Amino acid sequence: MHFASDNWAGAHPKIAANLNRHSDGFASAYGTSTLDRAIDETFNTIFEREVAVFFVGTGTAANSLAQAAIGKPGGVTFAHREAHLIEDEGGAPGFLSAGGRFQPVDGPTGRIDINNLKTAIRGFAPGNVHAGQPMGVSITQSTEIGTIYELGEISAISALCKDNSLPLHMDGARFANALITLGCSPADMTWKQGVDILSFGGTKNGCWCAEALIFMNPDQAKDVPFIRKRSAQLFSKSRFVAAQFEAYFAGGLWLELATHANTMARFLAEQIAGSKKMRLAWQPQANEVFAIAPKGVVASLQASGAIFYEWKPPHNEANLLANDETMIRLVTSFATTQEEIRQFGDLIA
Amino acid sequence: MHFASDNWAGAHPKIAANLNRHSDGFASAYGTSTLDRAIDETFNTIFEREVAVFFVGTGTAANSLAQAAIGKPGGVTFAHREAHLIEDEGGAPGFLSAGGRFQPVDGPTGRIDINNLKTAIRGFAPGNVHAGQPMGVSITQSTEIGTIYELGEISAISALCKDNSLPLHMDGARFANALITLGCSPADMTWKQGVDILSFGGTKNGCWCAEALIFMNPDQAKDVPFIRKRSAQLFSKSRFVAAQFEAYFAGGLWLELATHANTMARFLAEQIAGSKKMRLAWQPQANEVFAIAPKGVVASLQASGAIFYEWKPPHNEANLLANDETMIRLVTSFATTQEEIRQFGDLIA
Amino acid sequence: MHFASDNWAGAHPKIAANLNRHSDGFASAYGTSTLDRAIDETFNTIFEREVAVFFVGTGTAANSLAQAAIGKPGGVTFAHREAHLIEDEGGAPGFLSAGGRFQPVDGPTGRIDINNLKTAIRGFAPGNVHAGQPMGVSITQSTEIGTIYELGEISAISALCKDNSLPLHMDGARFANALITLGCSPADMTWKQGVDILSFGGTKNGCWCAEALIFMNPDQAKDVPFIRKRSAQLFSKSRFVAAQFEAYFAGGLWLELATHANTMARFLAEQIAGSKKMRLAWQPQANEVFAIAPKGVVASLQASGAIFYEWKPPHNEANLLANDETMIRLVTSFATTQEEIRQFGDLIA
Amino acid sequence: MHFASDNWAGAHPKIAANLNRHSDGFASAYGTSTLDRAIDETFNTIFEREVAVFFVGTGTAANSLAQAAIGKPGGVTFAHREAHLIEDEGGAPGFLSAGGRFQPVDGPTGRIDINNLKTAIRGFAPGNVHAGQPMGVSITQSTEIGTIYELGEISAISALCKDNSLPLHMDGARFANALITLGCSPADMTWKQGVDILSFGGTKNGCWCAEALIFMNPDQAKDVPFIRKRSAQLFSKSRFVAAQFEAYFAGGLWLELATHANTMARFLAEQIAGSKKMRLAWQPQANEVFAIAPKGVVASLQASGAIFYEWKPPHNEANLLANDETMIRLVTSFATTQEEIRQFGDLIA
Repeated sequence: MHFASDNWAGAHPKIAANLNRHSDGFASAYGTSTLDRAIDETFNTIFEREVAVFFVGTGTAANSLAQAAIGKPGGVTFAHREAHLIEDEGGAPGFLSAGGRFQPVDGPTGRIDINNLKTAIRGFAPGNVHAGQPMGVSITQSTEIGTIYELGEISAISALCKDNSLPLHMDGARFANALITLGCSPADMTWKQGVDILSFGGTKNGCWCAEALIFMNPDQAKDVPFIRKRSAQLFSKSRFVAAQFEAYFAGGLWLELATHANTMARFLAEQIAGSKKMRLAWQPQANEVFAIAPKGVVASLQASGAIFYEWKPPHNEANLLANDETMIRLVTSFATTQEEIRQFGDLIA
Repeated sequence: MHFASDNWAGAHPKIAANLNRHSDGFASAYGTSTLDRAIDETFNTIFEREVAVFFVGTGTAANSLAQAAIGKPGGVTFAHREAHLIEDEGGAPGFLSAGGRFQPVDGPTGRIDINNLKTAIRGFAPGNVHAGQPMGVSITQSTEIGTIYELGEISAISALCKDNSLPLHMDGARFANALITLGCSPADMTWKQGVDILSFGGTKNGCWCAEALIFMNPDQAKDVPFIRKRSAQLFSKSRFVAAQFEAYFAGGLWLELATHANTMARFLAEQIAGSKKMRLAWQPQANEVFAIAPKGVVASLQASGAIFYEWKPPHNEANLLANDETMIRLVTSFATTQEEIRQFGDLIA
Repeated sequence: MHFASDNWAGAHPKIAANLNRHSDGFASAYGTSTLDRAIDETFNTIFEREVAVFFVGTGTAANSLAQAAIGKPGGVTFAHREAHLIEDEGGAPGFLSAGGRFQPVDGPTGRIDINNLKTAIRGFAPGNVHAGQPMGVSITQSTEIGTIYELGEISAISALCKDNSLPLHMDGARFANALITLGCSPADMTWKQGVDILSFGGTKNGCWCAEALIFMNPDQAKDVPFIRKRSAQLFSKSRFVAAQFEAYFAGGLWLELATHANTMARFLAEQIAGSKKMRLAWQPQANEVFAIAPKGVVASLQASGAIFYEWKPPHNEANLLANDETMIRLVTSFATTQEEIRQFGDLIA
Repeated sequence: MHFASDNWAGAHPKIAANLNRHSDGFASAYGTSTLDRAIDETFNTIFEREVAVFFVGTGTAANSLAQAAIGKPGGVTFAHREAHLIEDEGGAPGFLSAGGRFQPVDGPTGRIDINNLKTAIRGFAPGNVHAGQPMGVSITQSTEIGTIYELGEISAISALCKDNSLPLHMDGARFANALITLGCSPADMTWKQGVDILSFGGTKNGCWCAEALIFMNPDQAKDVPFIRKRSAQLFSKSRFVAAQFEAYFAGGLWLELATHANTMARFLAEQIAGSKKMRLAWQPQANEVFAIAPKGVVASLQASGAIFYEWKPPHNEANLLANDETMIRLVTSFATTQEEIRQFGDLIA
């Protein structure tokens, strides 16, 4: 019963096989090979426009280099208070953007509240060097707590961004899962709603190590090759990332894998909804399920072999928990099986 | 005839297969899996002592994080004038060490001259904040130009380092190739000669993406987990690097591959030594061969399908070239075949 | 009626005269002159122990270099949510400490609540590279909103710091004002309560430009000369800062000036307490008075020549204001006259 | 006999007096006062165009913030091998520009050789992320070794800069001394020859602490207010710098002081030229005189009360010295007297 994280899974067999297939022969290094260029084209196709694509090694790198790309001296990016960029990147976004900071914005269910965002931006008077200058807005899709921004919410935030000349970044570590939930196209969920920069994650959805930083407008990415190199994120054998993406996109595998993960999450949520020992913290919308249970129940689940993390309740939801209760996070992935969930369901029945 | 770089090769079949083999199942993330830990042990065995091992994504990262680990405010590292860290990392070592700089030191055949190093260190008077403070010495083994430091040269440099309380870093992007040339053990070539920190490269010798930063004394690596994370170099599915190293070390594959590459370089050097159209710039000692030829010959070789780079002569060797001549670099790898070299030999015969 | 800020005042005549007096002759540069060293000694006397003193150009520099001195990779400092370091330094503390960040801690009346601090520190599990590592705690004395930490509060915070091996920094931009309120010695308010590092401000209390970064334990300041130089804060004619401090301390002038400023603040508070048009937001304890008044009253005061800033209410006190009201900040200094306050008092009577 | 440095002098009486005169009253902070704005206008007048002026605390700051203002990721600035920015700023230019580096360029008599500069720039192929990208050129006027770029040399360098889209920075720590030697206007020596950014030094020529970073085209300085703040270089009582500049410029005082310093240097050079114990290393052109003498002579001069530094010969001039000889630097300033020089002259006669 593996629900610790989608990054505990390995690589999907088709992706592993394709990497194997490309291990032969010679190819020019540093992202210039035929395969690298073909995958660039694939991204153009998927996003229905010419985009600038930069492979990097980790989701942290994609997010941090996005910050670096929009960086300004004294610059501040607005993100949800519990965003990964703020809480879980070990300071990388600030360090790799040479001093970029975050202004946390509150909002229920893991999503930025647009009124809070308005107020936060207004707090920075133009030219006030003491406060610093706004440099961007970042949203996470799906969010840290497994919820989803509706398309209208994204476009509302991006409209506010445009009013304030701020680029909009999307942390898409679980981009595919959100896409499946919304049933829309990658273009719909990004540039058609005004998203400028995307951290496109493949690792959590079945790759070994395949992350890309994507600029919807290549003109805004002029300096990114140098930003990537100075951050030590330019792979010499870049085609090993390209090979993963090739298989990832082939025949829509990526969507299939995300569909599976989301389906498993819904199935798991049903078990919890029907349980007497545990309840859902909120309705899951992607591949992460948050649940609340007495500490004793949680301990006994772990003793029975269920693997998951206890989780700090969101800042706004601290009173979700009764005194003896705790919150847990259960993550599904392409590798999650119905059998594991049934087994878990039996334990909490 | 692929001689452009050892990073144009792919992955050795055994390494690719092992990666494939580990694609299944679940494993804890961020370097904590059973496999990750087993490889840590393997490194201990290989180096005949307990070392601290940190997987990173690129050689640039290993070198830059070494700089960060020894970093001091106003800090200066001494390295050969043509070291990769100075000339070819896009500023990453300075950026990722938050301001570390390099003092170039001259020396023939790509190696630091110890007298020049002495003079350079002496140029920094203790407490002189204007000049900055020495923070380390870095050598490359094998060097940028395919030569080798003898063990005695390493220990002489390290003795000077100890006298000045400076840690000694070795850029081992081509560590295995140097090892084969010297016919010594990893321990001999590192800590037994006083090397403190090693960038251990696997990528150029048959891995897809396997680089490790190694501290001979784990006590000196206390902050490195945080340094690695803030530089976005901590892989979630870290075991995909571990899996490569597992196969790399199994049965001494890594030494076998480096032996092949070096043998191919020697074979290539013989062709050149016997050629009337081309001459060796200097005697190769690892897997890089530098040669000098009239520009016309070079152009005709390229037209015939030989792939390699023209190369800037070392600063001290600018007069190696006659007016119509140019220098080229030819790199061999685990994937180089005798057939390719024979073909090249025929062209220059 | 100048209540905009204590940094709108110029220099006290005695300080200006002493600077003038030292304009003659030659003295060795970069902090090595006889006068510089004499002032170092004066600081030792004032703090009743040997301290390490570093002159810098601005309060921002003192605070930021304190962050740099305690800096760790992935490091996080705990400070009050409305601390100057977080909100008003234009990102300098993070930039000059190469990536140090702040974890905001709430507390009423501008002071860190120790229970919140405990919780915040506990939020960083040892070795959790994703969250980062605690590197220090910073308090402001007097606070951003003109209140004071009692000695017992400082020692309680410092005890918590010691338990967690965290250095305690005090932002003393208005150090003298706090000292007068508490009626204690500099030693009492700092190292005797466990403060490790102090930003000692002279500028707001009658100097032109005299700020010092002080380490209670000089052993912890070994790298600070290099930190200061790489941040461009080492003055060549450093004695012009020393000359200001000489006059500042001579005959207890600094205490006299702070006493005057505090007295003026109390007098001003009395006017407001007795006013029907305006009320105190909270009881002032140093030289800053915060008051609440209808927007119309504020506009009319400004029209009558009173100079001050409107101020954002503290996060925890947003409901202090009725709908048509606003908050203002009134700052007194060595240069404030009773006459100005009487004039203001008349306007709000 | 004070020849150690022009920063060993204090402040000229008129400058000290003017600072004193402005110590009274209230003025808005952070560079917004009437006096600050008046000095901005004075700079416009002096440079015969609208320039953007930023006061900073040190010459190191001016130089480093210039680097930050032209900063690019992976960016490299070309400067003379012995430039202050490379050798004597403790790493500040790299640190405060978040990773900017220098490519040293050789040239005789402290000046960049334009052919070497051409070669150096050509070494950076567009888009070569490994090498990094050129971001500017910096020259020092007068140079580290007391020589001067002729106007034609500046315009030749700036033409090369324009061809390569590189801004040209001038380190003018001794700007006034160079101006006097050339007998031209500030406009002539800067933007009329294509200089874009100037570090304008007042400290070495009679101020306490008055340095300005000047952009000939204010449009290129949009982000500099934020760059200055994040580097902790924004003075609250900024008018104390303005007051120094007011007196510095009034009635051409600055030119008078530099004329005096240069005249004293020429007089000193005459003594040395006529000496049998000492010889000029090269002809001085500003206020620094470099001389060569047997070590015994130097020791005996010091014993007789002459204060100066021994100096490392320029890289290209190492063979200037005979075995028992050493090089010394003698700096004159506004405060140097003929009497001191006569006394020195007698000692070496």
